[in-house]
Amino acid sequence: MSSTGQTRGNGNARVRSAAAAAGTRLDPWYNTYADRALGMKQSEVRSLFAVANRPEVVSLAGGMPNISGPPFDFVADMAARLIRARGTKILQYGPGQGEEELREMISEVMRPDGVRGHPDDITVTTGSQQALDLISEIFLNPGDVVIAEAPSYVGALGTFRAYQANVVHVSMDENGLIPEELEETLTRLESQGKPVKFLYTIPNFHNPAGVCLSAERRPQVAEICQRHHVLIVEDNPYGLLGFEGDPIPAIQTYNPDGVVYLGSFSKTFAPGYRVGWALAPAAVNARIVLANENALLCPTTFGQLSIAEYLRTYDWYQQVKEYREMYHERGQAMQRALHAHLPMCTWNEPEGGFYTWVKLPDGLDAHAMLPRAVTNLVAYVSGTAFYYDGQGHSHMRLSFCYPTPEQIEEGVRRLSAVVNAELELVDMFGVSNRVASGSHLAHGTEIPAPNTY
Amino acid sequence: MSSTGQTRGNGNARVRSAAAAAGTRLDPWYNTYADRALGMKQSEVRSLFAVANRPEVVSLAGGMPNISGPPFDFVADMAARLIRARGTKILQYGPGQGEEELREMISEVMRPDGVRGHPDDITVTTGSQQALDLISEIFLNPGDVVIAEAPSYVGALGTFRAYQANVVHVSMDENGLIPEELEETLTRLESQGKPVKFLYTIPNFHNPAGVCLSAERRPQVAEICQRHHVLIVEDNPYGLLGFEGDPIPAIQTYNPDGVVYLGSFSKTFAPGYRVGWALAPAAVNARIVLANENALLCPTTFGQLSIAEYLRTYDWYQQVKEYREMYHERGQAMQRALHAHLPMCTWNEPEGGFYTWVKLPDGLDAHAMLPRAVTNLVAYVSGTAFYYDGQGHSHMRLSFCYPTPEQIEEGVRRLSAVVNAELELVDMFGVSNRVASGSHLAHGTEIPAPNTY
Repeated sequence: MSSTGQTRGNGNARVRSAAAAAGTRLDPWYNTYADRALGMKQSEVRSLFAVANRPEVVSLAGGMPNISGPPFDFVADMAARLIRARGTKILQYGPGQGEEELREMISEVMRPDGVRGHPDDITVTTGSQQALDLISEIFLNPGDVVIAEAPSYVGALGTFRAYQANVVHVSMDENGLIPEELEETLTRLESQGKPVKFLYTIPNFHNPAGVCLSAERRPQVAEICQRHHVLIVEDNPYGLLGFEGDPIPAIQTYNPDGVVYLGSFSKTFAPGYRVGWALAPAAVNARIVLANENALLCPTTFGQLSIAEYLRTYDWYQQVKEYREMYHERGQAMQRALHAHLPMCTWNEPEGGFYTWVKLPDGLDAHAMLPRAVTNLVAYVSGTAFYYDGQGHSHMRLSFCYPTPEQIEEGVRRLSAVVNAELELVDMFGVSNRVASGSHLAHGTEIPAPNTY
Repeated sequence: MSSTGQTRGNGNARVRSAAAAAGTRLDPWYNTYADRALGMKQSEVRSLFAVANRPEVVSLAGGMPNISGPPFDFVADMAARLIRARGTKILQYGPGQGEEELREMISEVMRPDGVRGHPDDITVTTGSQQALDLISEIFLNPGDVVIAEAPSYVGALGTFRAYQANVVHVSMDENGLIPEELEETLTRLESQGKPVKFLYTIPNFHNPAGVCLSAERRPQVAEICQRHHVLIVEDNPYGLLGFEGDPIPAIQTYNPDGVVYLGSFSKTFAPGYRVGWALAPAAVNARIVLANENALLCPTTFGQLSIAEYLRTYDWYQQVKEYREMYHERGQAMQRALHAHLPMCTWNEPEGGFYTWVKLPDGLDAHAMLPRAVTNLVAYVSGTAFYYDGQGHSHMRLSFCYPTPEQIEEGVRRLSAVVNAELELVDMFGVSNRVASGSHLAHGTEIPAPNTY
């Protein structure tokens, strides 16, 4: 698995020389790009994406939160009040670390996770995606190894790829990341002399797998990484969105000096402000601040002060509880629809978050099937998006966050027609023709990043 | 000059091993950082920065626009209206390239520069600083050469440093970048086999030098770079802020396929939204979009739609003209104060923008003098911040954008006391003691990035 980076590197070299010979009329600057730019993946079929966004398509693909919930009148009045009262501040540049008044509120927001983070150790970022980018910038030399769950968040994998890192996956079961396999992997990589820079993990309501790291495993994961001197990047956008109540303690609580904890307001308030954060050990945080200043001088003052005011003046945790109920209802609709229409598949039953991870019957390929699904007016994300090493053909990620329960039912119904048609092919020819032509798959369709939060 | 990067690299290696031996108790992750993280410059004296921001200090250091001008009532009503009418859109994720309705307006905003940019070729960024970061990410391998004016924007130099590039400076005179020297430099670097990735230039009301690239030189610079197949990154945050009227055509107009043009709303509307843009040749723009998605998924929808609405519904160009007059008045106040209080210095007379570039009398050192100035309740940015190679000790950047005319007068008066005191030392000892202790200077005080837009 650790040879992935090498293979990809060679692939890039081939692509570059081929295109340089043939394609300089199309891009006169092709030979000027940095090596890392050639590792950034093009969205292969933008036209499919355009189709998938048409109103007649039911999208079970996106990770967009449903924000018809928040109190628009309250938010509108708040914005107007802030501009009138604090216009010269809210419209101005601010500190690269982020506004202190927001960092103080973030410190409160992490309390339900058991995290006690000092505002000085927090950096506000442009969504937690940018925190991933800054952490990659700070830690990753080309060829360095990152450990991630199998599967893992597509946006993180894209960032690690842009920094020319090598991702080694560790398996999960219904209780999340498997500590024994983490231990074995770290030991193996150490013996191979391969530096592991960090473990990237999503312990709560995993994207895309929908599972949680159990309370028992959290101190184990912290201990294993501490013993191997491997930093943990704990990405927690969904932690407050458990259907059944308050969250369990974060991994961070077991070793604050060994964890960079990432949070976001995109799933619990609104992504349109682009505000997330990183809580890091003091010396690491100092580097994150520097990298943040280099990247964009400072995060949006308007977004930061709006969110700080919202947290101060609105019962935001009650609002989060209402979101939980809405997503719970949609998650249940997804379960009902899967039982009714896709009994030939297997899936998990998430206890929170946005996603269900569905395994197709043997012989079917989620990546190859996607254009057919979109033609049938339903979209999902192929499991292949969530692996660094070509796995995932047998899985789909189905989101239940954005569509209504009725749309979920209809979407899964449409999907069942596609799956049944594919199964007929398998019955006739022994195997679906897409699975047979393996080399073709690598260049197949894929839903691009903006739709796969 | 091209050996700068090498020297810096060695310096980093020394710092790393010294700190690794001594400092791992302070930062257990020190040995884990990527090479590039060690090239990011720490702000050496944050305490000085804290002092410089006290209300009793007149700061001629910052590049913050004066935004007491914009119509807060209008902006407040607009924000509230947008949230009420378009809440589910404005608070949601958007496309990685940026909102089409804003890109269409940006296309209009570039018209006074003579630029005809199609919305499809524009990417919205989190301030134009982030465009610099994305372009560096796409083009710069470690050791690659960037050409920049001497002096150049501190925020750009910091980004190039973070990407481990090597900056080679080309001189300016009162008409901006000198084409003959650009030609010689490119030819010399070619003969040395050093790949030049791009020319970074600020043609209008240069930060920090205050000069403009003359209309005659613009096609010459475009032609030279085209002939040497060197991309131009044309950074134009101040172009609309000429005291005497409308701008002259951008370099981009002479070779649209060879220029990435950067713009910003931070100086002409408000930096608090963090919205800027890049206009690039189509293939380059496609890579910028990918890098943008990797970095932060999408720019702030709230900020983008707010600015689009402002441009559509307010007479924004009339507002820019009012800013011009305000900055003109402040620029004149700066000239009067310099004539009255610093006749022993020399300086230019900018025709727009935010900055005056002041040369100290022989023997004085702007970098070494700064703590004394702050003690005397006036702050500026030392010229050393604007060079990659240790030049700039004889210069100060004085900003006239944020302080009132009265504050400018008072600040320059305070500065004259400091300069006179330093001159007395030079008279007594032949040279200021700070200039004599050269090795000390490299570790002196510096105003950090957030204050040096």
